[in-house]
Amino acid sequence: MGTPAPGDLRVPYQELVEALARVLLGFGFTKERAHLAARIFADASRDGVYSHGVNRFPRFLRALRNRVVDAKAVPVLVSSAGALERWDGQSGPGMLNAHKCMQRAIELSQLHGIGCVALRNTNHWMRGGSYGWQAAEAGRIAICWTNTMPNLPPWGAVDPRLGNNPLVIAVPRKEGHVVLDMAMSQFSYGAIESYRKKGTQLPVPGGFTSNGELTTDPGAIEKSYRPLPIGYWKGSGLALMLDLAASALAGGNATCQIAADPERETRVSQAFIAIDPSQLGGEAACAEIADRVISDLHDARTVSGEKVRYPGEQVLRTRRTNLELGVPVDAAIWEEVRRG
Amino acid sequence: MGTPAPGDLRVPYQELVEALARVLLGFGFTKERAHLAARIFADASRDGVYSHGVNRFPRFLRALRNRVVDAKAVPVLVSSAGALERWDGQSGPGMLNAHKCMQRAIELSQLHGIGCVALRNTNHWMRGGSYGWQAAEAGRIAICWTNTMPNLPPWGAVDPRLGNNPLVIAVPRKEGHVVLDMAMSQFSYGAIESYRKKGTQLPVPGGFTSNGELTTDPGAIEKSYRPLPIGYWKGSGLALMLDLAASALAGGNATCQIAADPERETRVSQAFIAIDPSQLGGEAACAEIADRVISDLHDARTVSGEKVRYPGEQVLRTRRTNLELGVPVDAAIWEEVRRG
Repeated sequence: MGTPAPGDLRVPYQELVEALARVLLGFGFTKERAHLAARIFADASRDGVYSHGVNRFPRFLRALRNRVVDAKAVPVLVSSAGALERWDGQSGPGMLNAHKCMQRAIELSQLHGIGCVALRNTNHWMRGGSYGWQAAEAGRIAICWTNTMPNLPPWGAVDPRLGNNPLVIAVPRKEGHVVLDMAMSQFSYGAIESYRKKGTQLPVPGGFTSNGELTTDPGAIEKSYRPLPIGYWKGSGLALMLDLAASALAGGNATCQIAADPERETRVSQAFIAIDPSQLGGEAACAEIADRVISDLHDARTVSGEKVRYPGEQVLRTRRTNLELGVPVDAAIWEEVRRG
Repeated sequence: MGTPAPGDLRVPYQELVEALARVLLGFGFTKERAHLAARIFADASRDGVYSHGVNRFPRFLRALRNRVVDAKAVPVLVSSAGALERWDGQSGPGMLNAHKCMQRAIELSQLHGIGCVALRNTNHWMRGGSYGWQAAEAGRIAICWTNTMPNLPPWGAVDPRLGNNPLVIAVPRKEGHVVLDMAMSQFSYGAIESYRKKGTQLPVPGGFTSNGELTTDPGAIEKSYRPLPIGYWKGSGLALMLDLAASALAGGNATCQIAADPERETRVSQAFIAIDPSQLGGEAACAEIADRVISDLHDARTVSGEKVRYPGEQVLRTRRTNLELGVPVDAAIWEEVRRG
């Protein structure tokens, strides 16, 4: 997430998608896959998730060059049990594998009311929220999550044994889908770095000093490599469960089997659940309930006087702005993309 | 959770179940339902979850007397779409409704690989972990959650608009199931009260003072009625999503429609998802993965030198002790139960 950096260029959305797709064609992507992957990167930046959008594209290209990601690999069905399927991502591009598996979960939910696809041997899915929005656009309630390399110490421990294992939950709503996309660490390393660069403290404790004291000092957390799970012991437990469930369902790697190097992180496990509430005869009721809940949330008395925002609300505002003014992209990265 | 209070009696497990069942028979429960409800209460205390076990039985009896809970009501199927069903709890006993719906989700997962049952118009399910253990005993990976009355201010707000909406995730494992049972507030009001009575501060900030300062003072949080969501804005978002998803799937009440009174909290919405990993041809693999993850967790270097515990690990130890020495029950409550 975050705000555009001061030097960012604003690139028209369509121009951005086409430029990214062109680069991917050069890496052996088919035309269709190049466009879909390009769109997923561009959409993340368009929606304000700059950390996992175009600004991450160069790292993705390195992963292609280093053969961490196999541009041509497509996910294959491993085993199936009605509404439940296991797929193997074959080390293909994480965003294409994830998109395919959420699409398959949506199809399964058409047939069975609910569908679940577990995916192993895949790569970083970039912005997890992408797959929540994808499901919500299809009218589905969705839950999906991924494990990651070890990057988070369990509560009470010093060394990172857990992943920050992002969890996504989406509920469709006519006036704007409600989509939560949250990692199990209080702050990502990217967010911590950005606070340090701005020279400000974190708004709440985000990890430990090397002496084991809770701290709001971003530099101290980067040094100790001990970020904090959300809710202390609670997020620690939740991160463990997400890893266990994803790896067990996918028959894939658990966090402890994934290389602890952002450039080499690969063969992660994911799970995608889509549920079709319209089949329960309550499509209107579902929309009505969502509106009632959001309306009640907006009525909350706040400290600032501003309304409480629901997950995904800011995305729509940012999307509007970025479609109008152009999508913010780091100038050097845009230069790299244009050079191809 | 918690430790037995100093004055607690230790009652043999079987005697406890029978005494509780006898009382429920007097309230019009059938023999079978009385025993199942009694067992769910006794199991919670046996497993160390004293706050939601036998010590909560008197409040449950009040709810029966006040007709908040209808002793004789059974859940009925409202609509169905293959692996997805919606049930109506008809204001029956929450623990029986929840048990029935998890059982049904398990059956559906037998047929379809995954099953989801949404339940509306039900009552407090007591210990949420009960239904996670139930699924894990059946070899299922499970996710279930409930909404509650409004008892938690959204991040940035002053008034409680969110429920603390407990979330349960279970993964079966031969050497001990891994079961997480966590509410979205950092501490329950019960836990906050118990810290205050002991005259100690919370180990981490658990809410706000009336002036809006984060605090570890339990009394100040009881006064402000502003407990803290886990992970600040993150748990606030997660609590909202759980409410939205449960109420939309169940076609039932959202938190904002539930009476904000612990004695009158009723007609809540819940969701139960069970997944059968054995149907993916990987039963052994699932167990092996779970063992690997737990073993890695146990290898973490800790601050205290003690091993990091996985969710559910302490339950098994407490269960052993309480089966051996008797289940701790508040003396006055045991007297009330014995009088019938």
